Amino acid sequence: MGTIDQKIQEENAIFEAMAPRGDDDFANYATPLIRDCWYAAGRSTEIGRTPLARRLLGIDVVLYRTQDGRPVAMRNRCPHRSFPLAKGKLVGDTLVCGYHGMAFDADGMCVHMPALNSAPASAAVRTFPTADRGPLTWIWMGPTHLADEALIPATPWLEDPAWGTVTGDFHIKADYVGMHENLIDQTHFPFLHPDTVGTPEYARSKLVAEIEGDQVIIRRRLDNAPPPAVYGKPAGIMHKRVTRTSEARFVSPAMHRAYAEIIDPAPEGDQPERYSYYITHVFTPESNTSIHYWWFTSRDFKPGNPEIDTFLREASSKAYYEDVEALEWIMDVVTKDEEQQFDMSFAPDRPGLMARRIMYRKAMAEAR
Amino acid sequence: MGTIDQKIQEENAIFEAMAPRGDDDFANYATPLIRDCWYAAGRSTEIGRTPLARRLLGIDVVLYRTQDGRPVAMRNRCPHRSFPLAKGKLVGDTLVCGYHGMAFDADGMCVHMPALNSAPASAAVRTFPTADRGPLTWIWMGPTHLADEALIPATPWLEDPAWGTVTGDFHIKADYVGMHENLIDQTHFPFLHPDTVGTPEYARSKLVAEIEGDQVIIRRRLDNAPPPAVYGKPAGIMHKRVTRTSEARFVSPAMHRAYAEIIDPAPEGDQPERYSYYITHVFTPESNTSIHYWWFTSRDFKPGNPEIDTFLREASSKAYYEDVEALEWIMDVVTKDEEQQFDMSFAPDRPGLMARRIMYRKAMAEAR
Amino acid sequence: MGTIDQKIQEENAIFEAMAPRGDDDFANYATPLIRDCWYAAGRSTEIGRTPLARRLLGIDVVLYRTQDGRPVAMRNRCPHRSFPLAKGKLVGDTLVCGYHGMAFDADGMCVHMPALNSAPASAAVRTFPTADRGPLTWIWMGPTHLADEALIPATPWLEDPAWGTVTGDFHIKADYVGMHENLIDQTHFPFLHPDTVGTPEYARSKLVAEIEGDQVIIRRRLDNAPPPAVYGKPAGIMHKRVTRTSEARFVSPAMHRAYAEIIDPAPEGDQPERYSYYITHVFTPESNTSIHYWWFTSRDFKPGNPEIDTFLREASSKAYYEDVEALEWIMDVVTKDEEQQFDMSFAPDRPGLMARRIMYRKAMAEAR
Repeated sequence: MGTIDQKIQEENAIFEAMAPRGDDDFANYATPLIRDCWYAAGRSTEIGRTPLARRLLGIDVVLYRTQDGRPVAMRNRCPHRSFPLAKGKLVGDTLVCGYHGMAFDADGMCVHMPALNSAPASAAVRTFPTADRGPLTWIWMGPTHLADEALIPATPWLEDPAWGTVTGDFHIKADYVGMHENLIDQTHFPFLHPDTVGTPEYARSKLVAEIEGDQVIIRRRLDNAPPPAVYGKPAGIMHKRVTRTSEARFVSPAMHRAYAEIIDPAPEGDQPERYSYYITHVFTPESNTSIHYWWFTSRDFKPGNPEIDTFLREASSKAYYEDVEALEWIMDVVTKDEEQQFDMSFAPDRPGLMARRIMYRKAMAEAR
Repeated sequence: MGTIDQKIQEENAIFEAMAPRGDDDFANYATPLIRDCWYAAGRSTEIGRTPLARRLLGIDVVLYRTQDGRPVAMRNRCPHRSFPLAKGKLVGDTLVCGYHGMAFDADGMCVHMPALNSAPASAAVRTFPTADRGPLTWIWMGPTHLADEALIPATPWLEDPAWGTVTGDFHIKADYVGMHENLIDQTHFPFLHPDTVGTPEYARSKLVAEIEGDQVIIRRRLDNAPPPAVYGKPAGIMHKRVTRTSEARFVSPAMHRAYAEIIDPAPEGDQPERYSYYITHVFTPESNTSIHYWWFTSRDFKPGNPEIDTFLREASSKAYYEDVEALEWIMDVVTKDEEQQFDMSFAPDRPGLMARRIMYRKAMAEAR
Repeated sequence: MGTIDQKIQEENAIFEAMAPRGDDDFANYATPLIRDCWYAAGRSTEIGRTPLARRLLGIDVVLYRTQDGRPVAMRNRCPHRSFPLAKGKLVGDTLVCGYHGMAFDADGMCVHMPALNSAPASAAVRTFPTADRGPLTWIWMGPTHLADEALIPATPWLEDPAWGTVTGDFHIKADYVGMHENLIDQTHFPFLHPDTVGTPEYARSKLVAEIEGDQVIIRRRLDNAPPPAVYGKPAGIMHKRVTRTSEARFVSPAMHRAYAEIIDPAPEGDQPERYSYYITHVFTPESNTSIHYWWFTSRDFKPGNPEIDTFLREASSKAYYEDVEALEWIMDVVTKDEEQQFDMSFAPDRPGLMARRIMYRKAMAEAR
């Protein structure tokens, strides 16, 4: 996989040649949502003894915990008369419908129907496999026999006390495909995020894009450069020239993960030589045109430092909100404009197109 | 028609066997609205000398009264340029369009068009047969030659001074089929209405369901039981054990009527032995997913007593609003959830399914 | 083209005979929008150095001026990732996309793409021909080679200091076809505008309707009549009997123009014998069911007189708002009523039908 500077002309030719074929090899907002994937259902602290209703992949889901703390997810729709089960109440580990008192256990089996002498044998509500992982509770909405917890993306830094993490969330009226393409694309940084992550030197730096299985990774390295404010300020090294390396990774339809290192060639006093950051973007389609989004900015120094926490929370919120706004503006244009458009692509779009092609193939494979 | 306790097992088998056939013998929210029926257009006091616009069965209707008090209903749409006639004004018995002054008499014939020398012979707006019955004005929106006033359901208690009646109304974002099924179903009382009508004894009492022509009736009897608060408190007999009988009746697509008697085996002083109640639920589809609803709670004792009126108005409002909320939640699930569901049915659903089958057959007969 | 009084019977017969053919020779709200026409994009003062987004004929357009004042219109959608260009910024004469910094010159050619070494040769955003004419900036959204500025309707009175003009605008949730029919129809004046332009004598006056090319003109003359308040009050001649002549003209799908003269047969002192008015209605479909509307009421006496300006601004606003309301009520009926209707037409509708037939033919010719 070459670098951009060397290959622009030939790749432009390639991508411009692709457009007339109708863009149909790349997922977009209209592509069926991928189901065979672990998605975040919510923060683990949101899910408790009060039933929580949330629409995930177009399906209304109710979330709660059993008395021993196990997360339960089931369709938020009684199989009898479609009453939303989240409007009922928990009795022990069973969820009791608020309409006729039909009670479902944590496996979705009807265990009691007050108007009948015995629970009807065939009555059940569909449940979904779930798993807690640190700050998030995950859900599998594809075929249950495919739900392998080993497929949940590992995020040990979110549970490791050596790392300091700040977090936030947004509900976004945009598509998860556009969100992935935005996150793996860094050429928009100087324009959409001029005050935070978007240094001009970085935008021009060389990039290597690779595919590892169903993941897409881009890597950059910049030597003897000023640190970006969002990383340099918490580290207190804005006056220095540093080496920056970064990796942005399309992990799965449910996650994008960025990793950045700043290396200070001449640390002062007992300052570290290396500063590491993970940015974990977790998002779940609510529908083809809306997303639940949770972000986590983690650092490997001074965990719990309140000034750094505040700085990073505010800088992250600002930058991610800039993305949210941009994606919502684009969604609005794409869904309302009466004259359709096939978007043009160029060489720097290659990582995003790689991810969109992976998503397209997954969606099509599931449809078959 | 047996009782529930005896027949649960075999009937469950029957209804579970029905589900796989696709539920297509029973009306639901998507079934075409039944037109050959008298529906309430509004309270008779709402309809007067100011034109009133109301959407009924998906059609915009304008309602007014002639100078001698006869109710008139016509399409709220001038046949000339579709101006809503309710925005015009009444001149004598004619409704004058606010756009070009085209005037229509109470039969919908154009009697004047100011820009023409004479009214155009073929210009008319469709009118609908109407009839006042006590507190309501009824409308027939099917073929006019089928409009037989004898088909308007009789409600003499709503006009009899020996009965005390309280009333209220709701606009509901739900379907009239679900409303009928809710009203004829009493097994939801202990769960949706625990504070008013839902005593546990009652939910377990035996039920007989019958069909009389196009009506469905369920009857219950409960001996030596505490009275429900909504009936017992106004009668002042909450400390007693009584006999309760009740009838719930799917009268027509436009009405459900409940009748209840409380018999006090040992009345004190000059207290009556029998207390009777009528609950008259009248509702008209505005569309397939919304309803105009008027309710009336009537009693045969102490008419005009302000404390009893207040108690019954508040208790009724509370209970019916619980139904309204539940029906709106269900409608929301049914219309938005991207994964469809065939609702399961059980033995206690039999009366509702009987009514839904009658509605389905009527709708299909009209479509032919 | 005879007068109405003579021809009512035969013309009614004609128009009633037309209705059964399905009304399909006349444009209505569902007819494809006519594109080969100069439309107003906005007031010339609205368009400047801050990009302005406006939906015109169903397409999102961004409007701005170059440094030397030339108006530019282009699609408000970056060809790369559909970002709305109006959210970007002007740098000199180029509009820079706020997402990746792609820069477009006033001809829509991409002149810079920061992440590439050179601007991609084929990248461009569609631009639309524009032209300033007095208070308005016009746009041509049909095929560019057909954009002939000579087709922009001349309105010299809007720029002539001898004329006093007041102006206003509305956004209307109605269709431009209905707006044209409303404007060329004066038989609604006494009913919709009883307090301003609608004298009864005028409604009954004779009318001549003519077609000139693709324009429809109706002319009226009324002798020895009281002046209408909207014209007579500013002239100070409400106590007189005057001769009124007027012309209403369907100029193009983008404009209706009225011209009125009041002739005072016995002017007092140095008062003029003749008072002239132009009313210029300019409107552009935002979509098939909404319009951008700008109106101008011009007089050839006492330009700049503040009392007359205020009087005419308020009277015009009131009368045109009455039209706006009526058109929105009709649009609401036409788009929501579940029972469709073919509107009936009569002899006085002939001018409006002539204009609707011209619009229908234009739209169909473009569709071929």
